[in-house]
Amino acid sequence: MMSFSFELIKTSTDSRARLGRMTTAHGEVRTPVFMPVGTQGTVKAMAPDRLEEAGAEIILGNTYHLYLRPGHDLIRGHGGLHRFMNWDRPILTDSGGFQIFSLGPLRKITEEGVRFQSHIDGSKHFLSPEKAVEIQQALGSDIMMCLDDCTPYPADRACTEKSMALTHRWAKRCRVAKTGEGQALFGIVQGGLYRDLRRASVEALAEIGFDGYAIGGLSVGEPKALMLETLEATAPLLPAGRARYLMGVGTPEDIVEGVHHGIDLFDCVMPTRCARNGLLFTNHGKVVIKNARYRTDQAPLDETCDCYTCRNFSRAYLRHLFIAREILALLLNTIHNVRFYLALMERIRTAIAGGAFEDFRRSFRDGRAEGDAGPLPGGRVDEIMEIDEEDER
Amino acid sequence: MMSFSFELIKTSTDSRARLGRMTTAHGEVRTPVFMPVGTQGTVKAMAPDRLEEAGAEIILGNTYHLYLRPGHDLIRGHGGLHRFMNWDRPILTDSGGFQIFSLGPLRKITEEGVRFQSHIDGSKHFLSPEKAVEIQQALGSDIMMCLDDCTPYPADRACTEKSMALTHRWAKRCRVAKTGEGQALFGIVQGGLYRDLRRASVEALAEIGFDGYAIGGLSVGEPKALMLETLEATAPLLPAGRARYLMGVGTPEDIVEGVHHGIDLFDCVMPTRCARNGLLFTNHGKVVIKNARYRTDQAPLDETCDCYTCRNFSRAYLRHLFIAREILALLLNTIHNVRFYLALMERIRTAIAGGAFEDFRRSFRDGRAEGDAGPLPGGRVDEIMEIDEEDER
Repeated sequence: MMSFSFELIKTSTDSRARLGRMTTAHGEVRTPVFMPVGTQGTVKAMAPDRLEEAGAEIILGNTYHLYLRPGHDLIRGHGGLHRFMNWDRPILTDSGGFQIFSLGPLRKITEEGVRFQSHIDGSKHFLSPEKAVEIQQALGSDIMMCLDDCTPYPADRACTEKSMALTHRWAKRCRVAKTGEGQALFGIVQGGLYRDLRRASVEALAEIGFDGYAIGGLSVGEPKALMLETLEATAPLLPAGRARYLMGVGTPEDIVEGVHHGIDLFDCVMPTRCARNGLLFTNHGKVVIKNARYRTDQAPLDETCDCYTCRNFSRAYLRHLFIAREILALLLNTIHNVRFYLALMERIRTAIAGGAFEDFRRSFRDGRAEGDAGPLPGGRVDEIMEIDEEDER
Repeated sequence: MMSFSFELIKTSTDSRARLGRMTTAHGEVRTPVFMPVGTQGTVKAMAPDRLEEAGAEIILGNTYHLYLRPGHDLIRGHGGLHRFMNWDRPILTDSGGFQIFSLGPLRKITEEGVRFQSHIDGSKHFLSPEKAVEIQQALGSDIMMCLDDCTPYPADRACTEKSMALTHRWAKRCRVAKTGEGQALFGIVQGGLYRDLRRASVEALAEIGFDGYAIGGLSVGEPKALMLETLEATAPLLPAGRARYLMGVGTPEDIVEGVHHGIDLFDCVMPTRCARNGLLFTNHGKVVIKNARYRTDQAPLDETCDCYTCRNFSRAYLRHLFIAREILALLLNTIHNVRFYLALMERIRTAIAGGAFEDFRRSFRDGRAEGDAGPLPGGRVDEIMEIDEEDER
């Protein structure tokens, strides 16, 4: 099995934006890249052929969810997550830490690991760094993530430092637990909103040595400006020759800013979850498809989009499906939003390759004030809109 | 626009089974044919490209639902139902009568037509034979159905006769109201479970003259044996040179029996609705996909099936998706069940063409005793299983 590598192809001169290529056991990924979220062994409402048609090069799977249901042993018995879900391009799995962190009173963190109760049936479980690696090895993902202790917001300096130090000890244990060469392992930088702690976290993780580095603990409720400041301060510290992953971010605007600061990988439930709630991203702004203004609108959702939805259906039809609560609304909306994100990444890569990323960034920022909804305030989807379910990331 | 025609290609010697071809403004349809139900301008959970891939040659649209939402004027403004839903193969629309009949206390039938209240918002509406034709002309379907008074079960002879006579007067008014040549109009035979009334109904409708004839008022709660007896007595009376349509039927077994008695067209929500509830049709019997026996089953749902679902996914994966309430479960299950029905029709047509329909019928009947569920008792899906929604057919 081919082992993991990351190659830096080009760095912008007027920005920290980078063009790169990851090589994994399941093929290459061009970066910067967006990973659609496939929480329970499926990107919600999208069959794998649609995902491929939309141009997805890598998707994310959730260890927490797959461990609980259907179970990693079952998936290993199937030959791994790729075969189980019929997706033969790369997969990154998270460690389960973020979901468990989100369980609140249902979890208890100790030096050894995390005790938690299943959100499905209340059953009791224990996740250690070693177990997180074991599960991800059973899933057979191309990129595994270290179990981390995601520092909440707000957190004072002492708490942040203590939590960060635990993350580092767990990262070391993950590194030791990993066997074989086919799967990459990424470390996760913590340190809250404290610049010097972020620096210390980068140094501690680089000292252990990982195939890539993620920035964790952002988009957990902090003001957008603080998120961007921390991102700006942290990203350049990450080892330049390794892939950089900003976890759980974000809006299209956030992604453009992330690329600007040198990030290579992104994931977020925003395109898929917004789609199911009728909020659609277009090149002329956001569309709330149930709005009466689209009742008889025969134009496609986005005339510049090449997705199946925009090639074949009108806004009026999409509005009808959504209002009539038809399952096809979920499909068509998801296909479009995922394609919008992936096409955005293609435009970003083209801009970097052409030495014009800053121009792209400026015109992107200026061009997106229109539409039904204002700019989305941040990465926390559940604060932005009414959500209809909880079981995605 | 090409006008409608029906050509009888072959009639079995050992059965009344017929092989035929309908020509419509949107292309040809080989009969016997099954029409997936597209109630609200979409076959639930199936995009049009999947429907085409499954081999659907014609689908059914529901006038009642489309009239209420999004409205036939809106659809006419879009260039008709075909363009609105991006389906360029033939469409048959019902008249709305059956749904209104099903509204119970919310509807009142007079000589002039039916007053009813919308199941969506309680708004009041009036449907006459002329209006039913006007709506279907706005939708632009290839085959329109006459408004009929669907006689309930049970009904005594006097009631049945009175209801039937009203159906005949409405059929005449529909015939007169129809304008243009691009759309066919089918009459609907009523007469309950009374053979002589069924004969009288066929004669009255044939006297008016329609492009095809449907048998209505079956699968409305009567015992299966009575349904089959009435079908057997009525179907041979229908004009041999016209298409024959058995409305709302049924299980795979019912369809084989219908073909045996000389029926050319069928429609039913069974494949789609059962799919959403996890009941899957296979060539080795019915599968209740949530059953524990499929937990680790790596085989495809049906090894003999060529659908997207069976080519790419295991039973264990389908079980996982269904239990995790993933939208993809609805898609994959629907793709399979629709393909099962359409492949069944292909096998039926091949058998008739080869002069072997009776052999096929016998082996089909003998081979379907296995599986998780026994034979389905009849055409009424809502009596067979817990259903999760009401807005289909």
